[in-house]
Amino acid sequence: MEPLRLVQPEVGQSRYAALAAALRARIVAGEWPPGTALPAEQTLAAEHGVALGTMRRALELLTEQGFIERRHGRGTFVKPSLSGASLLRFFRFGDGSGQAPASRILSREPLPAPADVARTLGLGPGEPALRLLRLRLVAHQPCLHEEIWLPLPLFAALAEGDPADWGDLLYPLFAQRCGVHVHRAVDSIGFCRLPAEPARALALPADHPCARVQRQAFDLSGRCMELRTTLGDANAFHYTVAIT
Amino acid sequence: MEPLRLVQPEVGQSRYAALAAALRARIVAGEWPPGTALPAEQTLAAEHGVALGTMRRALELLTEQGFIERRHGRGTFVKPSLSGASLLRFFRFGDGSGQAPASRILSREPLPAPADVARTLGLGPGEPALRLLRLRLVAHQPCLHEEIWLPLPLFAALAEGDPADWGDLLYPLFAQRCGVHVHRAVDSIGFCRLPAEPARALALPADHPCARVQRQAFDLSGRCMELRTTLGDANAFHYTVAIT
Repeated sequence: MEPLRLVQPEVGQSRYAALAAALRARIVAGEWPPGTALPAEQTLAAEHGVALGTMRRALELLTEQGFIERRHGRGTFVKPSLSGASLLRFFRFGDGSGQAPASRILSREPLPAPADVARTLGLGPGEPALRLLRLRLVAHQPCLHEEIWLPLPLFAALAEGDPADWGDLLYPLFAQRCGVHVHRAVDSIGFCRLPAEPARALALPADHPCARVQRQAFDLSGRCMELRTTLGDANAFHYTVAIT
Repeated sequence: MEPLRLVQPEVGQSRYAALAAALRARIVAGEWPPGTALPAEQTLAAEHGVALGTMRRALELLTEQGFIERRHGRGTFVKPSLSGASLLRFFRFGDGSGQAPASRILSREPLPAPADVARTLGLGPGEPALRLLRLRLVAHQPCLHEEIWLPLPLFAALAEGDPADWGDLLYPLFAQRCGVHVHRAVDSIGFCRLPAEPARALALPADHPCARVQRQAFDLSGRCMELRTTLGDANAFHYTVAIT
């Protein structure tokens, strides 16, 4: 029989908030991987020695915080990881068929992290990070240029082997090779002139107007696991927002 | 005593969906204006001659559809209208203090609606619409140029009087003068080169890179009430999106 996992609220913390923190810790520790079902509410309540109502409020809080989701008639699941396909929603390329773009790694090297990269990734100044330059292609036409910074040693597995074997999506690769699940991301959209190197890769003139998407991707614990700058032709940029 | 408002579901429609449609019709007809409270669930259930559980499911459906919102401990309210201040979230101007921009109407004229405008606004080809050209200013500096199309005769009240008296926000004006409540909007973002006329108004060179936001605004019944094209310096464009 499982030992009781009694939860002690901190001063000023409600019982269900303390319980939610305990469940979050179990999720972050990988006890229930992204996309899997949680045990039944009754089982969880018994494990933690709380009333069913208290467990339900804790699960509601985790739902609001985006850690879990209720699926009608099927139970409660840990939110699945992001697939990594979502950056394409900012651009329209090719025939508009929504075809998934191909990926080509242009370069991969461990480098001392520049100050802003180190700060964002939670590294000390000059600690090593893995830098990838990557081209995305639709119908064999280059369409996006990406500079990607990943913290070392966490992503050391990607410093080895042939990137040609990586496939077209990075986030499933992060999960398989490095055990990193991307839980949420924040994209900042701006506009700039295309620098010379990405311009060559995209077969566009230098200084061509381009849209720039700066992404920070986070794991379940809230640590930033990826810093990515994506550049693409401003004329291909298109995004729709609903306001209610 | 109020007569019973019995609801007859259509073939294949559930009882609560039919009830939700009946309540939506009462909201659209203006019985409960945007921002006001609905009667208690029990009262509504009695009025429509249904069980409380059925009424609750209907109200849940209207909440999901964005027509009403629950406020914890305070009841159920018709969603307030949009204030019209939201376009500014796409740009950073001035000192970043978030100061509300001033509005200056550059021109106002009834015109035969061009084909695409007529289609979007639900007008016949060549039927009249009101076209506004409007400048938004932050700290007395022009920052956004807007072309706004509104259907006539609905907005006839805005064809008269001095636009200098309109104030800085249009949506409260639409409500006060024309009885039009903007319930939701869809913004489509792209980049383009600045045409000559808006360039002059914004004191920027023609062909300067600019961000273009095309807005369609809808009332509660789902009719498009406004078609707006906003242009601003691409270098001032900034927008952040969270992905979960």
